[in-house]
Order: sequence, then structure tokens, then C-alpha cells
Amino acid sequence: MSVLSLADVYRARRRIEGRVYRTPLIESPSLSAIAGMPVFLKLETVQPTGSFKLRGASNALAQLAEQGCRKVVTASTGNHGRAVAHAARALGIEATVCMSALVPENKVEAVRALGAHVRIAGKSQDDAEHEALRLVREESFAYVPPFDDLNVIAGQATIGLEIVEALPDVAHIVVPLSGGGLFAGVAFAAKSTDSAIRMSGVTMARGAAMHASLAAGRPVLVDEVETLADSLGGGIGLENRYTYQLTRDFIDHTVLLDEASIARGIVHAYEQERLVVEGAAAVGIAALLDGRLRDSRVQRGPLVLIVTGSNIDINLHRRIVSAMPAQSHSYQTP
Amino acid sequence: MSVLSLADVYRARRRIEGRVYRTPLIESPSLSAIAGMPVFLKLETVQPTGSFKLRGASNALAQLAEQGCRKVVTASTGNHGRAVAHAARALGIEATVCMSALVPENKVEAVRALGAHVRIAGKSQDDAEHEALRLVREESFAYVPPFDDLNVIAGQATIGLEIVEALPDVAHIVVPLSGGGLFAGVAFAAKSTDSAIRMSGVTMARGAAMHASLAAGRPVLVDEVETLADSLGGGIGLENRYTYQLTRDFIDHTVLLDEASIARGIVHAYEQERLVVEGAAAVGIAALLDGRLRDSRVQRGPLVLIVTGSNIDINLHRRIVSAMPAQSHSYQTP
Repeated sequence: MSVLSLADVYRARRRIEGRVYRTPLIESPSLSAIAGMPVFLKLETVQPTGSFKLRGASNALAQLAEQGCRKVVTASTGNHGRAVAHAARALGIEATVCMSALVPENKVEAVRALGAHVRIAGKSQDDAEHEALRLVREESFAYVPPFDDLNVIAGQATIGLEIVEALPDVAHIVVPLSGGGLFAGVAFAAKSTDSAIRMSGVTMARGAAMHASLAAGRPVLVDEVETLADSLGGGIGLENRYTYQLTRDFIDHTVLLDEASIARGIVHAYEQERLVVEGAAAVGIAALLDGRLRDSRVQRGPLVLIVTGSNIDINLHRRIVSAMPAQSHSYQTP
Repeated sequence: MSVLSLADVYRARRRIEGRVYRTPLIESPSLSAIAGMPVFLKLETVQPTGSFKLRGASNALAQLAEQGCRKVVTASTGNHGRAVAHAARALGIEATVCMSALVPENKVEAVRALGAHVRIAGKSQDDAEHEALRLVREESFAYVPPFDDLNVIAGQATIGLEIVEALPDVAHIVVPLSGGGLFAGVAFAAKSTDSAIRMSGVTMARGAAMHASLAAGRPVLVDEVETLADSLGGGIGLENRYTYQLTRDFIDHTVLLDEASIARGIVHAYEQERLVVEGAAAVGIAALLDGRLRDSRVQRGPLVLIVTGSNIDINLHRRIVSAMPAQSHSYQTP
């Protein structure tokens, strides 16, 4: 018996209804022409806080609120942290985000602007996480994990439901792969309705913890490396409970991308789709442009790329799209 | 008795359902903070062909198809032309777009890529329009007007329905003002549900035909001037049948913007909303940033800005957002 059921996903949807958007699934003429099949983009970029993370966080927090929990903590300074802050405020729960003293002021302000408390602890992400866990142990905060949690996975899985409802003949879904919460959720929902739907995970070549773990046959540590797809960085946890197994069970194909390819994805999204996306959200487009999504079993599509978020440093975005000026049909390394 | 009824708008919605998207209406934290009230963006940027124009064109063409029409013609090389081409292909109708020999090759190719025939005629937009009208007279094509047509207006009005359904307490709707098809439709739908909803039209200071006509008390000609909001250019027609009167009846407030302000709107959309928008679509944001939407009767909002489209020349966009680097709370003239 699976750890997750479709009923969990429908329950998540009822819980988060009105708190997150059912996002657009739009056909991309440019990518369809390149792929030779209909290609659709699932635009999580329009979610409040700018990423899909609000789905899982909203489901987990709504569940905690039902159980009477009034204060939560996390140590993420990125999309998950923003999502927890936003969801907590919407539910009238107190959220605390632990950060090291080295986190840049703009990230601290972004979380404060969403109504969360910021607690500065130590000088590393590890220090911040230790402080979060201390609050859980000693001050009865509830911890909201970024991915390895069934409520978080069920929340992200609502994307899968929306895709199969809007596009019942979807043949192939391409998901940015990181801790596996999004991948596991979407793959579970999609394959529950049609086990023939092909599920690809795309990530950066260096520092991809889930890929290294799948290759090793167990969760392993990797060195974190700077990447344009920074939201895909971080470990999956040596004590991983759910996402490693679910991802291993459901993944049909993994694509690893270099940095130049991710940059091309960002540029294509800007020039052809008129979308501002973060590196992690551009990996599906990048993989397609690189011809890495071709598969004889899904020659006719439709193909869906999940465009997960827009939270890129805007000056970095400006530099990337300025470094690679418009070219009709070729993409050069910057 | 009005020339338009709410039943026409609901009929339009049934006709275009599945052909256009119900677009997201998302809250903007940055604009809400600036305005001191909830501000929402209606994202027509995600429509196929990149603008709201597909709504009116789809409704008009579906109606024509019901009447047995098999070939349509228009002379627009912009958003309306693309919308007609796309809608015609979807309905299995033949579309011809008349253009002058001076229209740039990329615009010709964009229309051809959507499956329409291109007919080159003369050396001006007037020549192209004469050719379109000749095809109507002599070869029984149906002409699809860009705005002054009840089916087009009813199609655009579906945006108004979506806004009042998603946000029943909406207090103020801000619409880019051009020929008046969008303004008339949205205002009609919104005020039909609540006559207290305030309707503002925003346009560029120079070459705004509807504004000049409202000031003169009748449709008048204006000189066309180059503007970042190029989609708002063009006349309203001295023989205007519907949009002049409907706009005059419904408009509460008009805002005229200079070019620097429109550029600031484009930059704000990019930096704060992570949206790539054309000048015409940025005018609501620009008016808000300039403090031009304050009104004692709608102090609490919610305020809705219709973000009409994304079809800006991407190299122009890149220049605009590069000329004005990120600044925390001030916006400078480029």
C-alpha cells in the first residue's frame, strides 16, 4: 500500500482552494514548433510568493491549523520560506523563519514583508536549522519541512491533478527535480490516473542530490555548488522518508543540464514566452531546446513543462538576457 | 434600451469557452503597498497570441462561422490581426490580413505563422484597409473590425464578468483606453452588476483619439504619434457606431501619461511583478505609480488593473529595462 493516496491529493486540493491559484496551462507555439508536438507550460510563476511552493506549505499549515497548532518554524530563506510566511499569515498562524547572520538583507526583508518573524542564528544554514529544531523541541513550534513531508507532497500533487484535468491526453510531464517533493507529488497524481504518462526530472549537472542518490541506490550527500538553478540545490536528507522512494518508483528519465543550457532556457522564456523565470523553472525549457526530451514512446505529445517560479534576482536576470541578444533560431553559450 | 445586454456577454462567454483562457487575477503586493489598498492584476498576457484581443475576435468569428461565413479579412498587423488569424484557424475559417509593403518582415511572418494569408497592398495602412474593404465588397469576405463591433465588445466584456466573479467587492477597474472596445465591454459588464464600480481609462498623452473625441463631444481625428503604448494608437473612426457612446456613458476618469511614465510602468512590471508587458499594458501600473488613480470614493479598493498584453518588441523591452536599473523605491526618467 502506498504512503499516499489520491484521496490525500483531493483533500489537499479542498484545503488549499482559495489560498493558491489554479494556474494557467498554456500552449507554447515556439516550443511546440521545436518539439514537433504540442508543448504546454504550467505557469506556477503567477502563484502568490512567485512559486509552486505555496501549494505544499498551504496544505501542511492548514492541516496543522486544524490540529490547533498556532506557531510554525522553518529555516528556508528561499521559496519555501516565503510560502510558509504567506500561508501562515493567511491562516492566522505565527511563522518564524530562522536564518544565519550571513543571509543578505533583501532576503530577510522579503520574509518580514510577508509577516513572518525572522530569527537570526549563527553563521550558516546548519546553524539556522539547529535553531529551528531547538524551537520545535523546547518551545513547541511545529516544523514545516520543505519537501520530505506527506502533506507537502500532497499539496504539490495538486499540480498533477490540474494537468490531467485540463489535458486528459497528456503523454509526458517534465518536472524540475530537487528534493523530490514536487516530482513525487506530480508523478503520483499523474500516474494514478494513467500509468503510461512519462515522467521526466530535470536538474543541474553539478550538486544534484536526488540524482546522485538514485545513482547510489540510497540517499547520499553532495557538495553544494553555485548554480543558476539555485532553488534546486540542497540535500535530500540522509534520513529521507518519502521523496527518495517515491521519486525512484516514478521517474522514467533524468536530464542533467550545464549552466549555459539553463541560461538559454531563461533567455528563451523571456524572448519567446515573455516570461521572467528563475533558473530552476527554466530547466524544462532548456532540456527541450537541447533535444534532451525526445522519446520514441511519446512522439505525439502533449508534453507539459512545469514552470515552477519567478524568484530570480532581477539584476541577474537582466544580465543573462542582455548577454544573449535575440537570435532567430540559434542559442549560443554566453 | 442599450445596444448591448448582459445576455450578449454571457452568450459571448459560452461561444469562446475553451478558445480563450479565463486569465488569472493576482494580487500585487508591491502595488498594494504603494496604493494602500488591495491591487489586483488581470493577466491577459497569458492569452494565446499574447493579448486580450483574442476574446473579441473569437466571439466575432464564432458568430460569423455560425452564420456560414468561411472567409474573413482584417487590416490589423498588431494584436487584433494575430487574434483574428488564431481564431480563424481554430474555427477552420480562412483569414486574410491585408498589409502595406512597408510592414516589417517579422510582423508579416508572425501572421503567416498563425496560418493566415497575407495580402500586400500599397504603401500605407490606408491602402491596406482599402484592399480589405474591396475584398469585402467584391469577394464576399467578412470584415472583422478591431473594436467598433458589438460582438467584439461583448467578447472583451467577458473580462469584466471574470473580474466581478473573482472579486465581488471590486471598487475600481482601470483599463487601457484606445478604440474603446475593451473599455466599453468591461465597463458595461462591471457596471451592469454594480453601477458604483469606478471605471478609469488610461492612455498616452499624445495621439489619444478617444480622449480627444470625448473632449470634443464627437469622434474626431488625431495625428498618430510614435509611443511606447503603440497598441493604443489609431483613430476611433469618424463613423464610430458604438464604442464612443459607450465609453462616454461609462467612463468616470481618464488619465493621460507621458512616455517616461509608460516606461516606468514597463520597468515596474518587470522588476516587481516579473511580467514582460507591452507599453499599452503597462499604463495602469504607470498611472498608479504616478499617484493618478487616487480617488476619495474608492479609498479601500480593491483596485483591478487590466494588463492587456505582452507583445512588445523584445529588444525594445530589453533596452527599457536595461536603461532603468533596479532602484528600491524611486523611478527615474530614462
